[in-house]
Amino acid sequence: MAQLQRQPCLSAKLTPTIRARPSRQLRTRVVAKADRTTEERETPATLSTPDTPPAPVPGKDRPLTELDILALRGKTKPHKMDWPMKRGFVSVAWDQVAESAEDIGRHLNRAIRELPTTKAFDKLVGGGRGGKLRLQADKPVVLVLGSGWGAHSLMKVIDTDKYAVVCISPRNYFLFTPMLPSTSVGTVEFRSLLEPVRVANPFVDYFEAVCDRIDLDEKIATCTGAIAYKDGRLPQFEVPYDILVVSVGEQSATFGTPGVRENCFFMKEIADSVALRQRIQNQFELAALPGTSEEDMRTTLHFVVVGGGPTGVEFAGTLSDFLRNDLKRKYPELMSYVRVSLLNSAQSILTQFDEKMQMHALENFKRVGVDVRTGVRVTEVTQDIIKLKGGEEISYGVCVWSAGNAPRPLVQQLAEQIPEQAEFQPGGRPSKLAVDPFLRVIGANDVLAIGDNSLVVGDRLPTTAQVAGQQGAYAAHMINRGFMPLTGGLQQPPPSKVADVLAPGQQMFATMGSMATSDDGDEGLIYYKKPFEFLNLGTLAYIGDNEALTEILGFKLSGGLAYLIWKSVYITKQVSFRNRVLILFDWMKAQVFGRDLSNF
Amino acid sequence: MAQLQRQPCLSAKLTPTIRARPSRQLRTRVVAKADRTTEERETPATLSTPDTPPAPVPGKDRPLTELDILALRGKTKPHKMDWPMKRGFVSVAWDQVAESAEDIGRHLNRAIRELPTTKAFDKLVGGGRGGKLRLQADKPVVLVLGSGWGAHSLMKVIDTDKYAVVCISPRNYFLFTPMLPSTSVGTVEFRSLLEPVRVANPFVDYFEAVCDRIDLDEKIATCTGAIAYKDGRLPQFEVPYDILVVSVGEQSATFGTPGVRENCFFMKEIADSVALRQRIQNQFELAALPGTSEEDMRTTLHFVVVGGGPTGVEFAGTLSDFLRNDLKRKYPELMSYVRVSLLNSAQSILTQFDEKMQMHALENFKRVGVDVRTGVRVTEVTQDIIKLKGGEEISYGVCVWSAGNAPRPLVQQLAEQIPEQAEFQPGGRPSKLAVDPFLRVIGANDVLAIGDNSLVVGDRLPTTAQVAGQQGAYAAHMINRGFMPLTGGLQQPPPSKVADVLAPGQQMFATMGSMATSDDGDEGLIYYKKPFEFLNLGTLAYIGDNEALTEILGFKLSGGLAYLIWKSVYITKQVSFRNRVLILFDWMKAQVFGRDLSNF
Repeated sequence: MAQLQRQPCLSAKLTPTIRARPSRQLRTRVVAKADRTTEERETPATLSTPDTPPAPVPGKDRPLTELDILALRGKTKPHKMDWPMKRGFVSVAWDQVAESAEDIGRHLNRAIRELPTTKAFDKLVGGGRGGKLRLQADKPVVLVLGSGWGAHSLMKVIDTDKYAVVCISPRNYFLFTPMLPSTSVGTVEFRSLLEPVRVANPFVDYFEAVCDRIDLDEKIATCTGAIAYKDGRLPQFEVPYDILVVSVGEQSATFGTPGVRENCFFMKEIADSVALRQRIQNQFELAALPGTSEEDMRTTLHFVVVGGGPTGVEFAGTLSDFLRNDLKRKYPELMSYVRVSLLNSAQSILTQFDEKMQMHALENFKRVGVDVRTGVRVTEVTQDIIKLKGGEEISYGVCVWSAGNAPRPLVQQLAEQIPEQAEFQPGGRPSKLAVDPFLRVIGANDVLAIGDNSLVVGDRLPTTAQVAGQQGAYAAHMINRGFMPLTGGLQQPPPSKVADVLAPGQQMFATMGSMATSDDGDEGLIYYKKPFEFLNLGTLAYIGDNEALTEILGFKLSGGLAYLIWKSVYITKQVSFRNRVLILFDWMKAQVFGRDLSNF
Repeated sequence: MAQLQRQPCLSAKLTPTIRARPSRQLRTRVVAKADRTTEERETPATLSTPDTPPAPVPGKDRPLTELDILALRGKTKPHKMDWPMKRGFVSVAWDQVAESAEDIGRHLNRAIRELPTTKAFDKLVGGGRGGKLRLQADKPVVLVLGSGWGAHSLMKVIDTDKYAVVCISPRNYFLFTPMLPSTSVGTVEFRSLLEPVRVANPFVDYFEAVCDRIDLDEKIATCTGAIAYKDGRLPQFEVPYDILVVSVGEQSATFGTPGVRENCFFMKEIADSVALRQRIQNQFELAALPGTSEEDMRTTLHFVVVGGGPTGVEFAGTLSDFLRNDLKRKYPELMSYVRVSLLNSAQSILTQFDEKMQMHALENFKRVGVDVRTGVRVTEVTQDIIKLKGGEEISYGVCVWSAGNAPRPLVQQLAEQIPEQAEFQPGGRPSKLAVDPFLRVIGANDVLAIGDNSLVVGDRLPTTAQVAGQQGAYAAHMINRGFMPLTGGLQQPPPSKVADVLAPGQQMFATMGSMATSDDGDEGLIYYKKPFEFLNLGTLAYIGDNEALTEILGFKLSGGLAYLIWKSVYITKQVSFRNRVLILFDWMKAQVFGRDLSNF
């Protein structure tokens, strides 16, 4: 038994599949793992101790799953397919419609069922390394890291009957990030933009924790709780997984500019927006206090946005609206001291739109009084001054930094763990996980990476919510259909499953659901022939004063009508009916009663 | 000129009015003060320097106000009236209705007018002590300290055409405190319960600052800004006043119990509720983490409320609703570990209601699972344990302390400054400002105290929002009619004004508005004959599970109908239409979508 454990499990075995065939004697991956959980690794001892009940043996204590059989067979054949296969827009769109129908059925099913009264933590047993607890599940475990666009979309769709889905994230809610700038001036309330993970899918086991390390060989994630006990201890535990989905996103980048972390506000999480909202309010109250000189007032009320991407531009536009419409009523005497500046290192702003639309945005900003400066590079931010390349210094009151994103430590660490990642990382430390067209991390077993922390090799997609959301749904559909990702890589066979375990109905369903699925695998092994394809539904950006830029299916618009579209799309894309109602009410409220920034 | 300044001003002179008559040579109070502001006190120099424009001279640069004339006359006669005069409920109620009609006219007038584009800080000049800036106004200054129930009600009603009204408070909004417990579990949003001072009355000059010291003789308040500049400097300035209204309220009392400030949550400000809301959410996420033992879970999810008054009881009731209705859906597996306890030192709870209603509340708590313990006294709160008198120890997760209130430092300092206050302070340090039936601080000139920080001698009123609100409106109406408070004291003449400055129309208005006003003062001096009388509209308390206790005009109710009344009253008593709409929507939202506690 102890010897068996040390053997690489099936999916690990599949890695060098082009070179060698795995041994037929391998026991199933699930059993091997379950056994590991019930044993102390250092003492290859009894199968069950008082704290650690024996894991169910597949085929004996519980029915065999496809995964077990796939593992038992442990075979595949060298990959000969030509992919990525590019499909047309209509074909991809039709596929998404068909999958949506499937998803609705799954949602309805969840809605009418009793909630689970036992959760994964009831199944925790001892035996982790260093005495840590480990999760023990009787279904294959899909471990999702993160709760952003990719993770949320995956969790909404994934089949929790087939899989034990575990979500690890320090943030227990999904956030509709594109509207974050609106919350910083009070147009929309924070709570209107979020959906708690536990509400999004109550059958997912959510833990408010951070994943510190992944053992890719053992397929174990080591996690630390995000909340401490009163004595300062942080809960620590391990989660063994069958499939890992990395969707932790990115963090704000300072590009090493000194003083940015200490003196600037970011636009990434609600906490950023809460802090910024309080600061904006404080600046006005401070400027209004007796004893503030004219010079101090001008500095205090100078709002600088660094970054000309959609976030920076939307924030500048929203802030200028707020000043002109709302603060004018509260601080009429201060309005002549207020300035909004937008600094961008590129020669224009919103470079994802065409030149004509960029010009429109620039003109709009000129009209509403936002001072745009392009082609400037910030070299340092001190408590009082923003220093530009060339020596110029700008005194400021509040600086919002939205100049780009940088990788999270876990992603860098993972990419460095996998030798195959090196060739896809352009110089220096890795910044994203390179994935193949099935979103499998190249060089890793059963690891998918979606959203901003991933990079589809050969198909550079924008790092947007839209891409992450579609990737999450894609991954969930693949997993739902029983395909194991196996080893990622451009020369590896696609995700596979065993054909003959499927009942005839299931088979038909699988074929219908994923049109590209066929049975040309070896010995009844089915390959998943549908690589991820991004369906670009369009790009939107709000530019202030009820104007927006939109580019939907190639159709370009700028101005008031575009703003109407912006509003409609943002409402439609909300993840729940609740969010839709709340945001509509927030908009109405801001219109009727003005925006409120009171400090607390 | 310099000599004149050192002479006590008129209202100071009126203090010893029974003993001596003020000199007729006195120049007006307003002029004297305006002059002071334009001069360096140490150097009796020129009247105008480049920084300090000359103050307008009444009767020359601006029309004479009543106050000027009152000061010019500088006379009154010994007080011979019998008061306090007790009036019937109907008379007081009718008076409030008549005054409300007046107020509505004033509101409408404000609503249609252009907002001021210059504010008090434009009129700040040098010359304060220690180089501090001082406010210079061309109208008599009413300085309001605080932005709670008393101050807000006063600012809504006060006539900003007649007076320069200045509000100093570290909180730039009014908060509907009775509903604070609802916000801590997300039934109502924070912003729905507040109204910014600048919105409540845009003609009031608001400064986000704290008043550190009052010079009662010079009639100057020394203030420090509540927000610092980037270099850490806090703005400091002085506000000379003609009438001071102290309405700073009280702060939470720990009664010197060790560990309470460090380990407990209070229920006084929004920040308390924000912190508590985050903590409740955190406790559940922590308990749900792998590695939390059963014992830890039981402790982590033990919510203890100390204090059996309305705030404590409403919080316990609201929390238990939240657990049973909302958290049960999100954390079904944790429900068996959750406990809510209410500790009270008295032998019952809600002692302002009669015994039968107290019993009803106790039974209701029993039914919904709140464990009430009466007659227990907390002696210490440590990080993990609440110690009771007698040695018992209770382990807890979250402790909410709402066991009473204590005076704010400014109030104690003021009371100690005034020798006449001593006899009304029952042993030890003073805790409230003793006021006469006109709400004038006994022994002080032109100082009113309203709300929880005041104590009407001979008429112990409950320390409730209702009393504070009525007192604020009372004070505003008295000031609006041109009466100067003069010296407070049970033997002092009532607030007075000069009769013959009034135009015939104004005179009729004044008489109609305040039925008790007559002209029996000396030489055309009118006394304000209407002391403050509290119109008790009833008492309400929510006790959980859609039940409440109400006692309205002596009519007692408990149960579901009482809860309907509770809801209606709270909606009706909201300070603005905006608050009403927002709270109604919050209630609807909580009903339809459940309450959200997501952490950020």
